[in-house]
Amino acid sequence: MLNRVRSAVAHLVSSGGAPPPRPKSPDLPNAPSAQTAAPPEAPRSPPARAGSSAPAKTVEARASFSRPTFLQLSPGGLRRADDHAGRAVQSPPDTGRRLPWSTGYAEVINAGKSRHNEDQACCEVVYVEGRKSVSGVPREPSQGQGLCFYYWGLFDGHAGGGAAEMASRLLHRHIREQLKDLVEILQDPSPPPLCLPSTPGAPGSSDASHLVGPQSCCSSQKEVTHESLVVGAIENAFQFMDEQMARERRGHQVEGGCCALVVVYLLGKVYVANAGDSRAIIVRNGEIIPMSREFTPETERQRLQLLGFLKPELLGGEFTHLEFPRRIQPKELGQRMLYRDQNMTGWAYKKIELEDLRFPLVCGEGKKARVMATIGVTRGLGDHNLKVCSSTLPIKPFLSCFPEVRVYDLTQYEHCPDDVLVLGTDGLWDVTSDCEVAATVDRVLSAYEPNDASRYTALAQALVLGARGIPRDRGWRLPNNKLGSGDDISVFVIPLGGPGSYS
Amino acid sequence: MLNRVRSAVAHLVSSGGAPPPRPKSPDLPNAPSAQTAAPPEAPRSPPARAGSSAPAKTVEARASFSRPTFLQLSPGGLRRADDHAGRAVQSPPDTGRRLPWSTGYAEVINAGKSRHNEDQACCEVVYVEGRKSVSGVPREPSQGQGLCFYYWGLFDGHAGGGAAEMASRLLHRHIREQLKDLVEILQDPSPPPLCLPSTPGAPGSSDASHLVGPQSCCSSQKEVTHESLVVGAIENAFQFMDEQMARERRGHQVEGGCCALVVVYLLGKVYVANAGDSRAIIVRNGEIIPMSREFTPETERQRLQLLGFLKPELLGGEFTHLEFPRRIQPKELGQRMLYRDQNMTGWAYKKIELEDLRFPLVCGEGKKARVMATIGVTRGLGDHNLKVCSSTLPIKPFLSCFPEVRVYDLTQYEHCPDDVLVLGTDGLWDVTSDCEVAATVDRVLSAYEPNDASRYTALAQALVLGARGIPRDRGWRLPNNKLGSGDDISVFVIPLGGPGSYS
Repeated sequence: MLNRVRSAVAHLVSSGGAPPPRPKSPDLPNAPSAQTAAPPEAPRSPPARAGSSAPAKTVEARASFSRPTFLQLSPGGLRRADDHAGRAVQSPPDTGRRLPWSTGYAEVINAGKSRHNEDQACCEVVYVEGRKSVSGVPREPSQGQGLCFYYWGLFDGHAGGGAAEMASRLLHRHIREQLKDLVEILQDPSPPPLCLPSTPGAPGSSDASHLVGPQSCCSSQKEVTHESLVVGAIENAFQFMDEQMARERRGHQVEGGCCALVVVYLLGKVYVANAGDSRAIIVRNGEIIPMSREFTPETERQRLQLLGFLKPELLGGEFTHLEFPRRIQPKELGQRMLYRDQNMTGWAYKKIELEDLRFPLVCGEGKKARVMATIGVTRGLGDHNLKVCSSTLPIKPFLSCFPEVRVYDLTQYEHCPDDVLVLGTDGLWDVTSDCEVAATVDRVLSAYEPNDASRYTALAQALVLGARGIPRDRGWRLPNNKLGSGDDISVFVIPLGGPGSYS
Repeated sequence: MLNRVRSAVAHLVSSGGAPPPRPKSPDLPNAPSAQTAAPPEAPRSPPARAGSSAPAKTVEARASFSRPTFLQLSPGGLRRADDHAGRAVQSPPDTGRRLPWSTGYAEVINAGKSRHNEDQACCEVVYVEGRKSVSGVPREPSQGQGLCFYYWGLFDGHAGGGAAEMASRLLHRHIREQLKDLVEILQDPSPPPLCLPSTPGAPGSSDASHLVGPQSCCSSQKEVTHESLVVGAIENAFQFMDEQMARERRGHQVEGGCCALVVVYLLGKVYVANAGDSRAIIVRNGEIIPMSREFTPETERQRLQLLGFLKPELLGGEFTHLEFPRRIQPKELGQRMLYRDQNMTGWAYKKIELEDLRFPLVCGEGKKARVMATIGVTRGLGDHNLKVCSSTLPIKPFLSCFPEVRVYDLTQYEHCPDDVLVLGTDGLWDVTSDCEVAATVDRVLSAYEPNDASRYTALAQALVLGARGIPRDRGWRLPNNKLGSGDDISVFVIPLGGPGSYS
């Protein structure tokens, strides 16, 4: 993902400031894989947010390079996983405990673009114990059953691996913390209470007698679903994770940022939350169902431009919020150039004025699109230190930590063992189309017995291999001789055909 | 559309200010239909915008009530069109000149909710003469052919009919003005030049030699299509129309605002531009293709909340940008309430603080959803005077005049005479589903010969009648005994099966 953050056009941006600290990848000696569990969390309330608290203690200073614990890598295995020349595909060992649901996983390091693999992954079963008496009514001994959720996360780091590693160790704990208030509510089939008492024993206030008069447009109460509470919990967990990174970035190795693609399975539904340019699709009976969309300078152009327009101070006098189809030359002043502003999807001509010579906030196309000439993804976690090169202008205000969450109801369809949810970092999707993934799903799974639990790992490996290619003609090449992905590649294959039997 | 603007909850909004001027419907004696053409336009450059100029002279002060000129209403006909008791359906006369493409049109006045029919409509063939030497190269005598576009517009007024009437008379002229620069470019199959000289004869600068170095993320030039130029022209025309209303609202009867739904047919493509809650669908071989989406406080919640969050001064200390599922009571302070902020699609609980007791910026559901407890549509033209009731707080900053433009390529499909584009104000869609419209299309058109040009008017009438219903049981009722629409209802039916032969 390193190529998604670049500052090569610094000389094009007028600025007189001294070179600021620039995000860089950690370049540290190898260390054993982090197989120890993260420290137990202690609640910690950030200011001005109720019903939520930071779930995890500060992450310990980690200068070490690590891979997901479920890979169970020995020191020798870790060295092989870190070898850019061999680019060996890594998967959990075929012996011992499988991942939940017999999930398949495979990864491979990049071809040399960054020192270490900056992708990280996490797969956990998380138990959520409810807070006592959320509803204000003392619980019966028989009550108080907690909730379990299944969790998968892919984190594609950039400008260092610290943010991705921190997110892989802590984001599910933030989700658990957000769900703690909801344990009773989600298990109660009646609609969620709109209002909860502040203290146990205080009367609830979800009855309609408190409503304002019927003449108000707010006279009715909105229906809020259980599902939307889970979505809100995941959204807020992303924000708390990002805030924790901001707090702890100085004392620890939380350099750079990361895209986050997360799946939560809870009470029959699959929640796919995406912030960045990783992607998820369901392949069901050969049909492709997109479960995410990418957040890039191109897909979020209008949001970015609007922010620059409403808060011009964020542009630092160096950038213009207008988009132009190419950089304007000073000698073109007074001529008329095509442009788009934040309200437009079409293009029109405008007379070039002095401030149009500033660098455009959003520029480039496809994989080369950038915000402030620097970063190629517009959502994710971290990046609190990211500045425009040769400037002290922060880029973080333009980045959003909020995911888009899509919900898939597993109970609405009878899934077979060949139906899978595939998660991949952009290393997969840059060179593999949805249809090619679906074809690989069909080809690999049909070669295994439906009840062979290793088939999903084999599929993940096939997808990673298919995106990496083989070394030939001074590069990693695909069978069609095109270049394979030189990026880190990570893939989860989550079978949908039998959560009940796997869980 | 009057019910889309209401201030009934004013007492819920804390404000110490004197009652401001409040938008009201004009309540004037009937006057003859405005059948005289609008005055010829004179270019007029608003500040800081190049390549564009206001196309139309100021609209004359018009205190009169008018209907679309193509209805050719006599004074008696105008009185009948203005009769809330009879609610006679109006269509262009079956004699004389038909609307372009044999377009069908029908309308009916509301059941008494406003004094006059606040919908307006326009249907025109517009010739665009190119400006001289846009490309800088002197034109050959054989060059300089202008362009024709076909134009249909529906304007659903609120809080007065002035904005809708002004838009119906002038918006197509703004579009023509925006297209003037593009006449040569759109007829040239080569890609549009990115940059035009400021003066005739100056060298063009669309060649690649002016590009910045390859190290820049802006080193490539974006491809801009002819289609996106037309989209940009329409978008900017909406903005210029809105700016003209702002300039002229004091001297003239440009009260209130209006939704605008506009269709432009140009060079084989249909452009459907929508700002508001009117809607357009194509019914093609029985299949329904949505050609617009509605802009309401619900569909634009996140845009509105983001603006309130970034510019809290626009909330005047009276509103909170947070959304709650119902109004909060002061005694609930300190309890925890469900909320959504601008980044969330899900809900979560937050502790109620003092500022949460402010009125929510967005509240209500469905047709009762409101911005600032006042207006139920979030895009359109006008509304420059609209204030929160019992307050001087302007609502206009939250409203957008920009349409969403969808493009439909007429040449990609061989259309039959039964394929139509149906435009309707919300009076139609409030009580009629897409499927019901498609069924009416099938039922009515199959009763006429394919070459009978009156079939589209018959279809428009059937759609309006079906939404209005018949007077029964103290109301206008549909066959299923549900209430029909008491709103103004206006419908265009545009046949897609033979533009070539009609044009």
